[in-house]
Amino acid sequence: MTIAFPEPDESVLARREAIRAKLAEIVHPEALIVSEDERRAYETDGLTAYRQMPLAVVLPSSTEEVSAIMRVCHAEGVKVVARGAGTSLAGGAIPQPDAVVLGVAKMARILAVDFDNRTARVEAGITNLAISAAVSHEGFFYAPDPSSQLACTIAGNIAMNSGGAHCLKYGVTVNNVLGVTMVLVDGTVVELGGQHLDAEGLDLLALVVGSEGQLGIVTEATVRILRAAEGARPALLGFPSAEAAGACVADIIGEGLLPVALEYMDKVAIEITEGFAKAGYPLDVEAMLIAEVEGCDADIDEQLRRIVAIAERHGVTTVRVSASEAESAAIWKGRKAAFGATGRISDYICMDGTIPTGQLPLVLRRIDEIVRREGLRCANVFHAGDGNLHPLILFDINKPGAMEKAERAGEHILKLCVEVGGCLTGEHGVGIEKRDLMTYQFNRADLHQQMRVRAAFDPGWLLNPAKVFPLQGRIAA
Amino acid sequence: MTIAFPEPDESVLARREAIRAKLAEIVHPEALIVSEDERRAYETDGLTAYRQMPLAVVLPSSTEEVSAIMRVCHAEGVKVVARGAGTSLAGGAIPQPDAVVLGVAKMARILAVDFDNRTARVEAGITNLAISAAVSHEGFFYAPDPSSQLACTIAGNIAMNSGGAHCLKYGVTVNNVLGVTMVLVDGTVVELGGQHLDAEGLDLLALVVGSEGQLGIVTEATVRILRAAEGARPALLGFPSAEAAGACVADIIGEGLLPVALEYMDKVAIEITEGFAKAGYPLDVEAMLIAEVEGCDADIDEQLRRIVAIAERHGVTTVRVSASEAESAAIWKGRKAAFGATGRISDYICMDGTIPTGQLPLVLRRIDEIVRREGLRCANVFHAGDGNLHPLILFDINKPGAMEKAERAGEHILKLCVEVGGCLTGEHGVGIEKRDLMTYQFNRADLHQQMRVRAAFDPGWLLNPAKVFPLQGRIAA
Repeated sequence: MTIAFPEPDESVLARREAIRAKLAEIVHPEALIVSEDERRAYETDGLTAYRQMPLAVVLPSSTEEVSAIMRVCHAEGVKVVARGAGTSLAGGAIPQPDAVVLGVAKMARILAVDFDNRTARVEAGITNLAISAAVSHEGFFYAPDPSSQLACTIAGNIAMNSGGAHCLKYGVTVNNVLGVTMVLVDGTVVELGGQHLDAEGLDLLALVVGSEGQLGIVTEATVRILRAAEGARPALLGFPSAEAAGACVADIIGEGLLPVALEYMDKVAIEITEGFAKAGYPLDVEAMLIAEVEGCDADIDEQLRRIVAIAERHGVTTVRVSASEAESAAIWKGRKAAFGATGRISDYICMDGTIPTGQLPLVLRRIDEIVRREGLRCANVFHAGDGNLHPLILFDINKPGAMEKAERAGEHILKLCVEVGGCLTGEHGVGIEKRDLMTYQFNRADLHQQMRVRAAFDPGWLLNPAKVFPLQGRIAA
Repeated sequence: MTIAFPEPDESVLARREAIRAKLAEIVHPEALIVSEDERRAYETDGLTAYRQMPLAVVLPSSTEEVSAIMRVCHAEGVKVVARGAGTSLAGGAIPQPDAVVLGVAKMARILAVDFDNRTARVEAGITNLAISAAVSHEGFFYAPDPSSQLACTIAGNIAMNSGGAHCLKYGVTVNNVLGVTMVLVDGTVVELGGQHLDAEGLDLLALVVGSEGQLGIVTEATVRILRAAEGARPALLGFPSAEAAGACVADIIGEGLLPVALEYMDKVAIEITEGFAKAGYPLDVEAMLIAEVEGCDADIDEQLRRIVAIAERHGVTTVRVSASEAESAAIWKGRKAAFGATGRISDYICMDGTIPTGQLPLVLRRIDEIVRREGLRCANVFHAGDGNLHPLILFDINKPGAMEKAERAGEHILKLCVEVGGCLTGEHGVGIEKRDLMTYQFNRADLHQQMRVRAAFDPGWLLNPAKVFPLQGRIAA
């Protein structure tokens, strides 16, 4: 509980009922949540250690309703926290007592699919998986695949610039969204981007992707849909040391191979996962990789042959190349269960740093030292191909001081990522969790310029305030 | 001469000598150009129909000098036009009488190459080709390849988000730049992005790429370098109609094939080119494509086989699949000479619209109608795979009214691109050329938000003013 929230605006709290009444004029009665019991479902997100009850929750059904809500909130000086599915791991959707939560979950329709131009127009509350489901009959899919893809919405993906296991080949959200409709803080509706690759003028679309709900409320998006490859098969590779596995990753990327996924698990993660998922993972290795490649059968064979040859140069001791769908499923089974399996045996916090892939061996060694120093253990499970680390720091929440130790280790790991040329977050966002670390990554001039741009959208900081950027006093200090 | 420049600031003109004297204190004497003869080299760029003499030209050698220059210009209220190699086709580097041209040409060093992480750190005045030359001994290259790549600088590429024939596979500049050092209008130096794929906070790097010198002066960049493919070979495909060629492009992309280049030339372009380059292009077709694929030999064979099969479905009449480097060079020879060959037989203006690829057949038909209506001819040569059109509108500059007719046809073609869901520029930028068409693409709310963001960097519009955005009066009107 080390992160501070600002004091709520007393004048807004005093006008609570009047504000709720104005919102009630805009949306269907069921779409406005004011009872304490029902509001409780919105008091946190994936960062459940922190909770704040919102003033109200409103679930609009159209861009017009969102615009009307923003006009009311803007006129009344009320903060607005946009919310997709609430799966954020960094507290990006945690509300405040003087803020309205604007959830887009009711806006979840597919508006149009254009197979000729390989795009789909969707409402922002739709889930990733629902887009793929709507286009799969023609052999297409939507690429970004965060672990939460069953639940998470395009709105949240845009807010966090989400990735996933397959973003090594297909890119992250910013590479897969072509345009959005966005409601500004004063209710104005703007269109950013379009059904084309680039656009003239300032690239506000790229600015909005990853802006964590602070520039406007995205209500619709045009996304790129891709034709699924003919086939895909993984290989599982076990190594006698973390360094050998890390060096193998660097060489696979360095040789210009482009696996669709390249996932890393260390010994702790393998043991935890194997105890739960029984995927047949090797228990006599220090680290393993799952490298999946796509294409026609001949392509797949050739790419996997080259990957295994690189692994052999690094002393690989276990090689399992999938030759069938059943074998592929078995290889993926453990990796997909890794977070859940970890949660069954221990409390954990999941870090999300990004590093240049060449630094992988060094960073793995240093993470181990950092975690040991706090007397804790760490399970490393991550997207190695693009240098996006997800160390899971294990601790026992019932032990006094253990969570603080885990948070301190996490902070050191993220600072390490910055030191080696990486950054504080790959795909989970800054939210409240990493707000106060931003001064470690950016100097005052860098941060001030970002804050001036944020203010060009929302001078009063009504949209998802007190997140991402250090609170006013700190940066001025 | 249909585009208006604003009246110069008389107070700046009156202080001309004092301003030059302050700049003289910052840079080496040879790096400050004030004589009329020498300034004349900077009065225009690739849009040579428009010319304006700058107040002075300054050619700094370091980020520190750029910062000092900006401090002086900011304090004196002097406009600054950043300039790379001056190859802009849209007037992006054309100065004004009350503006200082800040050229980055003297800042052209490679600062570091990191093969492990596949990045290079360069000064912004370096040419694209010089980066590739510096890393080719290890089998790497820098991907974006505008036609002007012999001369054009990374600074200009960043300003315009430049692409090139190979951007279908490798992306445009924004996909290949990882970080920049930028000097703000008041001389503050900021770092944007870094040596990693994504970053927390607002993505100012993506905002800066394509901002046409209006947000700051980029002095250094970290760019991605890629390992060159094992090999590459093109196929030349001739079709009996523009529609058939356009439909073939849509199907190649639609089937998920990813040629590294997919270029289109129509009959007029083929005839003009063949008369000059003698590349052996077919004269009995209405349109032709050059599709180049990369990989190992087996990969290349398989991909070209699939492309030819698609072409056969669309009635291809000429198929020439390269089997050697000599045959590849012959196929590319004409395409690379196309603009030059056109310039030898006619004056022309080169348009730069982008459309969804599925609209290609319709747009080709409509372009033909638009140009005929003005009594002109058009040669279509463009990057078809990503829908980036470059119609060359031919006219005789000595015929009264002919240039106006060409400009009018160009305007209609760009509006057509917007109507079918595309945009006004793919890679050449807005500059002065398309400034007044921006209101056709964007409504007032969209443009105002872009202008507010621009103002968050430069409230006084001192950086490359009177470009990209309609002049103040027009948007307020």
